[in-house]
Amino acid sequence: MLAELTPPPAAQARVGLPLQASAGPRLINVAVIGCGYWGPNLIRNFASTQGARLLAVCDLQPERFAKLQQQYPAVEFVSDYEALLARPDLDAVAIATPVSTHFKLAQMALAAGKHVMVEKPMTATVAEAQELVALAAVQQRVLMVDHTFAYTGAVRKIRDLVQTGQLGELLYYDSVRINLGLFQNDVNVLWDLAVHDLAIMDFALGQEPVAVSATGHAHLKGQQEDIAYMTCFFESNLIAHLHLNWLSPVKIRRTIIGGDRQMAVYDDLEPSEKLKVYDRGASLQNGGLEGLRRHKIDYRMGDMHAPHIAPGEALQCNTAHFIECIESGQTPLTDGQAGLRVVRILEAATESMKRRGEPVSLFRA
Amino acid sequence: MLAELTPPPAAQARVGLPLQASAGPRLINVAVIGCGYWGPNLIRNFASTQGARLLAVCDLQPERFAKLQQQYPAVEFVSDYEALLARPDLDAVAIATPVSTHFKLAQMALAAGKHVMVEKPMTATVAEAQELVALAAVQQRVLMVDHTFAYTGAVRKIRDLVQTGQLGELLYYDSVRINLGLFQNDVNVLWDLAVHDLAIMDFALGQEPVAVSATGHAHLKGQQEDIAYMTCFFESNLIAHLHLNWLSPVKIRRTIIGGDRQMAVYDDLEPSEKLKVYDRGASLQNGGLEGLRRHKIDYRMGDMHAPHIAPGEALQCNTAHFIECIESGQTPLTDGQAGLRVVRILEAATESMKRRGEPVSLFRA
Amino acid sequence: MLAELTPPPAAQARVGLPLQASAGPRLINVAVIGCGYWGPNLIRNFASTQGARLLAVCDLQPERFAKLQQQYPAVEFVSDYEALLARPDLDAVAIATPVSTHFKLAQMALAAGKHVMVEKPMTATVAEAQELVALAAVQQRVLMVDHTFAYTGAVRKIRDLVQTGQLGELLYYDSVRINLGLFQNDVNVLWDLAVHDLAIMDFALGQEPVAVSATGHAHLKGQQEDIAYMTCFFESNLIAHLHLNWLSPVKIRRTIIGGDRQMAVYDDLEPSEKLKVYDRGASLQNGGLEGLRRHKIDYRMGDMHAPHIAPGEALQCNTAHFIECIESGQTPLTDGQAGLRVVRILEAATESMKRRGEPVSLFRA
Amino acid sequence: MLAELTPPPAAQARVGLPLQASAGPRLINVAVIGCGYWGPNLIRNFASTQGARLLAVCDLQPERFAKLQQQYPAVEFVSDYEALLARPDLDAVAIATPVSTHFKLAQMALAAGKHVMVEKPMTATVAEAQELVALAAVQQRVLMVDHTFAYTGAVRKIRDLVQTGQLGELLYYDSVRINLGLFQNDVNVLWDLAVHDLAIMDFALGQEPVAVSATGHAHLKGQQEDIAYMTCFFESNLIAHLHLNWLSPVKIRRTIIGGDRQMAVYDDLEPSEKLKVYDRGASLQNGGLEGLRRHKIDYRMGDMHAPHIAPGEALQCNTAHFIECIESGQTPLTDGQAGLRVVRILEAATESMKRRGEPVSLFRA
Repeated sequence: MLAELTPPPAAQARVGLPLQASAGPRLINVAVIGCGYWGPNLIRNFASTQGARLLAVCDLQPERFAKLQQQYPAVEFVSDYEALLARPDLDAVAIATPVSTHFKLAQMALAAGKHVMVEKPMTATVAEAQELVALAAVQQRVLMVDHTFAYTGAVRKIRDLVQTGQLGELLYYDSVRINLGLFQNDVNVLWDLAVHDLAIMDFALGQEPVAVSATGHAHLKGQQEDIAYMTCFFESNLIAHLHLNWLSPVKIRRTIIGGDRQMAVYDDLEPSEKLKVYDRGASLQNGGLEGLRRHKIDYRMGDMHAPHIAPGEALQCNTAHFIECIESGQTPLTDGQAGLRVVRILEAATESMKRRGEPVSLFRA
Repeated sequence: MLAELTPPPAAQARVGLPLQASAGPRLINVAVIGCGYWGPNLIRNFASTQGARLLAVCDLQPERFAKLQQQYPAVEFVSDYEALLARPDLDAVAIATPVSTHFKLAQMALAAGKHVMVEKPMTATVAEAQELVALAAVQQRVLMVDHTFAYTGAVRKIRDLVQTGQLGELLYYDSVRINLGLFQNDVNVLWDLAVHDLAIMDFALGQEPVAVSATGHAHLKGQQEDIAYMTCFFESNLIAHLHLNWLSPVKIRRTIIGGDRQMAVYDDLEPSEKLKVYDRGASLQNGGLEGLRRHKIDYRMGDMHAPHIAPGEALQCNTAHFIECIESGQTPLTDGQAGLRVVRILEAATESMKRRGEPVSLFRA
Repeated sequence: MLAELTPPPAAQARVGLPLQASAGPRLINVAVIGCGYWGPNLIRNFASTQGARLLAVCDLQPERFAKLQQQYPAVEFVSDYEALLARPDLDAVAIATPVSTHFKLAQMALAAGKHVMVEKPMTATVAEAQELVALAAVQQRVLMVDHTFAYTGAVRKIRDLVQTGQLGELLYYDSVRINLGLFQNDVNVLWDLAVHDLAIMDFALGQEPVAVSATGHAHLKGQQEDIAYMTCFFESNLIAHLHLNWLSPVKIRRTIIGGDRQMAVYDDLEPSEKLKVYDRGASLQNGGLEGLRRHKIDYRMGDMHAPHIAPGEALQCNTAHFIECIESGQTPLTDGQAGLRVVRILEAATESMKRRGEPVSLFRA
Repeated sequence: MLAELTPPPAAQARVGLPLQASAGPRLINVAVIGCGYWGPNLIRNFASTQGARLLAVCDLQPERFAKLQQQYPAVEFVSDYEALLARPDLDAVAIATPVSTHFKLAQMALAAGKHVMVEKPMTATVAEAQELVALAAVQQRVLMVDHTFAYTGAVRKIRDLVQTGQLGELLYYDSVRINLGLFQNDVNVLWDLAVHDLAIMDFALGQEPVAVSATGHAHLKGQQEDIAYMTCFFESNLIAHLHLNWLSPVKIRRTIIGGDRQMAVYDDLEPSEKLKVYDRGASLQNGGLEGLRRHKIDYRMGDMHAPHIAPGEALQCNTAHFIECIESGQTPLTDGQAGLRVVRILEAATESMKRRGEPVSLFRA
């Protein structure tokens, strides 16, 4: 096989130094760790990502392999992750295991000189996230968190709307992300669902919250919180709120982003027209002294515009971006710092939730 | 005119003693105070409510009368509310003025021996609400707060679902009530919009919250908060959350009520099928020790049922109920106590909102 | 009263000659004939139309008057339409009676020198429509058919899209207009519901059909057809199809207008965004010889745009336009000719429906 | 491999005689012919259907194989269908080629003693369909048409509603099946899209139409009709209408089935609640003589009920059913006769469409 003829890359490859093989660009050897709910998606994508070669798949429960082995006969299926991470022909790993194990696996992989992509949330604590960021810097390896939504056409368009000033000054970000199941057993609903919104906000809004208040409830005995609400406060006029629920009879994925010029509604369940931009809002009339009177508020009810979002692009984007960053040495759009920022908010929100909404500051000493 | 021939009723009428006239039941003479946004609805309804006679309409801005005078030529239009309340031929008043004036007007009316219906929220403070409740008791007059939704078919059906146990143990009440405008200038968005949900909860859920946490933001300079989020905590497993917004590009009125047997979705903007009841939920499997394992949660995805809700019934119901309570002496479904309970939550929520979500207890000393 | 002081207008007023009174413009005295389902809307609108004075309301069933008399105390309520039409102080009538009576009433009114607005469909037969058009010309009076939708913001916008070429060459007009009830007893569902679409098409498309094919069925014994389908053929590439149904469990009002440049979807039940314009379509690739191969078709999936349609405008527009035409002598946008064109299609469609879709030509000898 | 050890089944297998191998049931060897739009779905399903072994895939364009070969390394990919059909180890074929080639391939396969599943529509003409039905009978082989929707939970539920009388007497079947593309180059939109509805009707309604009227238009030069409307007449009170369109800016899949007891709305694009059953309708009041008067019609506006439809079931059902019929000798739910009935309507409708809706009888001499 081709892969056996190429020299082990981990020995000489460095972030920032594009890899060169004598006969065309060398493939990056990737392993996916974790074959649960999300792992198979990563496996499918890496199997068809330009520049990558899916070397191995690893899981502690080998009974998960059967179906995948049929589909990917050329891939190795292993359970010993320590042996896997010690292989010199392995360049990079993608970790899709339960959150509580992210840190240990990513740490081992970075220590072994591998590039690492971790599923969201990156780690279970801020301290862990900080340690991974530091380790990746020392090892000069790519550390990327798989904030998937940042690679979708809709969220990229939202970032455009913010950055180009089309929405104007941001007033609020409001998201509802609810459905029935799937209960996680090692994290509460914030870590499972709010992480998506926090990743989108981190990517698209260009502002970081300074404090957070959250409330929630665990309805099933012995389980984590299954419903949660969370407000993020910013230094600006922006306020963000997330509604997360594993116990909803209906599935909703709807985000409203209010600006003082335009407002966007992003419904991820819409087959087309996922994003609608409204020329609507309210503003104080010029008129100074009387600005406080009710009838001095102008309401603007203008057109709506739904930019076409090409479907399906996100599927490959994140794995391709990971490979590209390894090859070119560039920093991922969703790097370890992004993963850390999101984990910091989740940790603070969980703390606030235990205290019935008491606000928790996000400023770090 | 006929009205001048009937004897002043306030002199001898008493709550609990059905009024009797020699020739058929006597009409209750009603005045509506306030011709702004909501007043005309009350005027229209009282004009056609069995047993009521719309005697007068009162507003400090007489320019609001023109159109109404054309429609109701038999009604008197006045600006002097003190003179109006002093009239012996007036039995009852409905108050639809700005919130800050509710207390003073209701107090004067009760003191003058009139039955009183007040728009929601009943008063601007808990202290005011308590005083009105006490005064109505002393004066033996009907004090009703116009919690309109309690008189709609959909909310009555929700109360049925709760009371008959069809929903099972209540898990959550989640409501989104957002639109563009109308900004109020004397109250924040909680007092304008959350009041509807608190009234529905008070009427339908059969439980009172024990603490509240709220967050929000005022985006327009010098204005009240235009966006707010509010969580109500209960002693049971129930948690309630309200999302209120005057700055949304889209209008949403959607409430989800989760029970451990069934769940209801109430969308007030649906022309038909306002209420959908889902046989869906999640529960721990029997199996005790292993209850913490993820795969031990059962998801139930059953049928959905939308009971037919006859339209339009609510229009007349609240005014008819007010008249009926005056005639029969019964306590209104939405009496002064209900108004007080709702105001207590609003006051606590506003306090919590000023402190970024810090929880505020609703237990009273 | 003021009206009694003004000279009878019918004597000297002429279409084309603006009326002049010594002291300001004289009011046009209008009577509404028919107080059934639609009449009250006309009454409400004429009561507040600039330049009009609602003189009288006429119906053969006086029990319909009670409620209206309360609302319009200054208006006369009469049952003798012959006496009404003979009054010299009456300038114009609006006819909202069952279709079968339109002709007789409109004919009498025109003969008496009155201006006439007739509800849609204008008459029950083509012959009747032709006679009214001729009579109005002889009498020099305004004959307007109340094709209501032509006066709505959405339909006016559609006409703009067509006339400015924004949609490109028209490919199809497809409309679904279905609901439960109201069964008419003197006309089938085509005359009740298709008339709306034919009026919109007549107003907005700028093309007339040349033939029609229709199918349908009468499900209730002894009743008219309650469900009908109708195709209009044009000389161009345009094809139009209407789906009408009185027996649908759900209400739908949705029209799709396909052009080769853009396509519009008009949903009259949407509270906002009634009209959506899509930059979507399919076209043959340049490439001549291979044009027949499947992969040579280009699909365009572009943005969607929903122009803001100000709500509520149509309510007054048609009555105001009628008065304006009387005053200025201009021809109504929806004149007798428009009424005739629509009736011609309805008559042909009914004939085709009796013969199970056999096409019927609309060319007249 | 196991398959090579089993004796060639075609030699001794007979319809009606369950196959028996000494060691467990023998697998049915299947080949899929055609790798275009639909073929890959069949390939995926047969690859995981109990009792089947996907032996080979055949297409005249070998460039379509690359991706599939990666996914199914154990399957043979061939282009010579004649050689394929001659193989004694092949038991059955599934044909997913352009419609115009169905007949020739199915005929060859049946003649070679293979069981045959053909994509819808079964053939391009009634004569071809009749010949296949006869040939399958002579050869004693299973001939099944892949009327996919008959194997979905929603359509099976509709059949239940009809058969159990829950809908009452059927009044109408109305379906809208529109989207942008995919243009077919060898058939018009009726043969591409109406075939789904005709298959559903054939499976669920329990009645056959007696005549058909259709209209349509071909907008792209040299292409087939891209928009079509079709009415089916029945001997009973039932009327069916289909709306098919390849040029719609929006995708709609909505069927309304009206009965005189209940009415069902089936929206195949709904992620959940695909089927809604309404307790709504209209009926003549008892009262004989006055039945013709408008106010003598009763409207019933009752509850709505959405039975839970388990998702995803249909994927495997049709291939599993085919294998089961081969093994057990039972007649497929969608057998050659069903395929023939649908093709007969399509042929008549195309004829009617050429004559602008002129009705065409479906009675055969």
